Amino acid sequence: MGEFDLIARYFKRPVRRAALGVGDDCALLAPRAGHQLAISSDMLVAGRHFFPEVDPRALGHKSLAVNLSDLAACGARPLAFTLALALPEVKQRWLAAFADGLFALADAHHCELIGGDTTAGPLNICITIFGEVPVVDGRSQALLRSGAKAGDDLYVSGTLGDARLALGALLGQASLPAEVLAKARQRLERPTPRVALGLALRGVASAAIDVSDGLLGDLGHILECSTVGATVEVDIAASLIAASAYSESVGGQFLINLPEPQRRRLVLCGGDDYELLFTAPATARAAVQAAAQASQTPVTRIGQIDAAPGLRLIDRQRQALPNSYASFDHFA
Amino acid sequence: MGEFDLIARYFKRPVRRAALGVGDDCALLAPRAGHQLAISSDMLVAGRHFFPEVDPRALGHKSLAVNLSDLAACGARPLAFTLALALPEVKQRWLAAFADGLFALADAHHCELIGGDTTAGPLNICITIFGEVPVVDGRSQALLRSGAKAGDDLYVSGTLGDARLALGALLGQASLPAEVLAKARQRLERPTPRVALGLALRGVASAAIDVSDGLLGDLGHILECSTVGATVEVDIAASLIAASAYSESVGGQFLINLPEPQRRRLVLCGGDDYELLFTAPATARAAVQAAAQASQTPVTRIGQIDAAPGLRLIDRQRQALPNSYASFDHFA
Repeated sequence: MGEFDLIARYFKRPVRRAALGVGDDCALLAPRAGHQLAISSDMLVAGRHFFPEVDPRALGHKSLAVNLSDLAACGARPLAFTLALALPEVKQRWLAAFADGLFALADAHHCELIGGDTTAGPLNICITIFGEVPVVDGRSQALLRSGAKAGDDLYVSGTLGDARLALGALLGQASLPAEVLAKARQRLERPTPRVALGLALRGVASAAIDVSDGLLGDLGHILECSTVGATVEVDIAASLIAASAYSESVGGQFLINLPEPQRRRLVLCGGDDYELLFTAPATARAAVQAAAQASQTPVTRIGQIDAAPGLRLIDRQRQALPNSYASFDHFA
Repeated sequence: MGEFDLIARYFKRPVRRAALGVGDDCALLAPRAGHQLAISSDMLVAGRHFFPEVDPRALGHKSLAVNLSDLAACGARPLAFTLALALPEVKQRWLAAFADGLFALADAHHCELIGGDTTAGPLNICITIFGEVPVVDGRSQALLRSGAKAGDDLYVSGTLGDARLALGALLGQASLPAEVLAKARQRLERPTPRVALGLALRGVASAAIDVSDGLLGDLGHILECSTVGATVEVDIAASLIAASAYSESVGGQFLINLPEPQRRRLVLCGGDDYELLFTAPATARAAVQAAAQASQTPVTRIGQIDAAPGLRLIDRQRQALPNSYASFDHFA
């Protein structure tokens, strides 16, 4: 099967929202009047972002999910994406499953494939995604990293650390009960982009980012862009690892022993969580809860923004903890 | 040097046309009123699209040039691009030279880097590019592959086959005088995207595509999308290989012996030319010449569009030639 057959068979679908989709030199796309496009690009490499032998359906899901997560962090509504794919060989079953997983998530978010490229090469998936953000009275409604103010509350959505827990188990660094691994692995391989929450937080959150490289590392970007500091209540954050909750919820059947230092490390610098980390004025607490409810996404207040630069970690007794946590870096 | 330092050092520049550039979860971009975005994505893989040891400055140029060429083929004005880059290791001199070559061409086309991704992995460069096309009375002014009509003339810009000639010499398939190789290699490693010609052809050309996989293969896409056939005057096309002209222009100093079958093959299915192949009504011949002059880009009429499907090749005596030419396919 050649390149053009491959595109036609697995990736060409009727155009819906774009003016022109797959099959010409360019796709044509326009945001609606009064809107701008939010654009993000993520590249996933075999052996670094995923195991080469991962279920291709899950890989299709995750490839798009990490991009949708960037739109969520901007409060953008998904519109369309391009897919560039380097494949070591054309395996039809693999491609069909990859396309299935990709399009299932794309359809759930009404996000349309409008173009791309395929080539032979070491497995590499590069998606560029487009979302819409309203511009009101000349001001973009996008959520940025740069809007956090001293006194703002600091929140995170959902659960944290389970993806890294699963990765550790799959790498043989730790052993987990099979049922816990299965649940945690879902978080690693099929993350849930918080698109609805991002939309609900427009006009409520003062700054936002998605947690891809680890909570503290990504918080660092907000602090740097906003020129502020923060205090994080480590044990509130550490309670957000779902693996413990699975255990408790079934009366200890899945019980796992995660020592406190390990739990803190998984949550604070695990990465691959694809939750939203955001700030909002203390006066907006009811609005944040309303956004969480409207989007059916749990959010937890884990600290606050300070005028003093730097990051402070405190435990449940509000005692200072040393910050010995490094974030994930692709080249470290 | 970590991922974020790397982005800041080599790829972060002040925002000009975008509402928000490198450094947040998304970039923000809006076409001007009355315009739509043309979007294209190309992935370049080491060992397939370029030699791993190629001059990084040339690679930076070519990575963007192949994307600009897609905009040219749509008659779109370059606006911005994202860059996703997988690198086996961080080599600062390599990166500085790559960024130099990339930004020199970007600046020449007022095309702004607005975001992207960097990761460790086998060398892979994925650029997604954005251009602007006017929409007049609800109709896009983009040049498409689908507008060719029976009776239209068939044109190609510039020169053909020299990139493939250089590739053959570099692969040791043929030997070339050093001066000829140097010139041909420029065509392989630093192609000229025909952006000005594409813009000048809006409202003149009936269909267009850029020649990346070989003249006949890319012509096939126009024929398929337009549901027409074509007749190509092979020896007019074959005269467009520049290597011969170099030889003649200096009184035979660079003389190379390209047998006719080889010259035809290089021109018809060489690939990597990044010229524009386009069609226009016979009544538009003066307008085509005006567009060529305005954009300072030579164009040559090499055949015509037929109502009868299929591709016919004729020689200088207008005798039919067998079509034994296969196009480049990344998976063939």
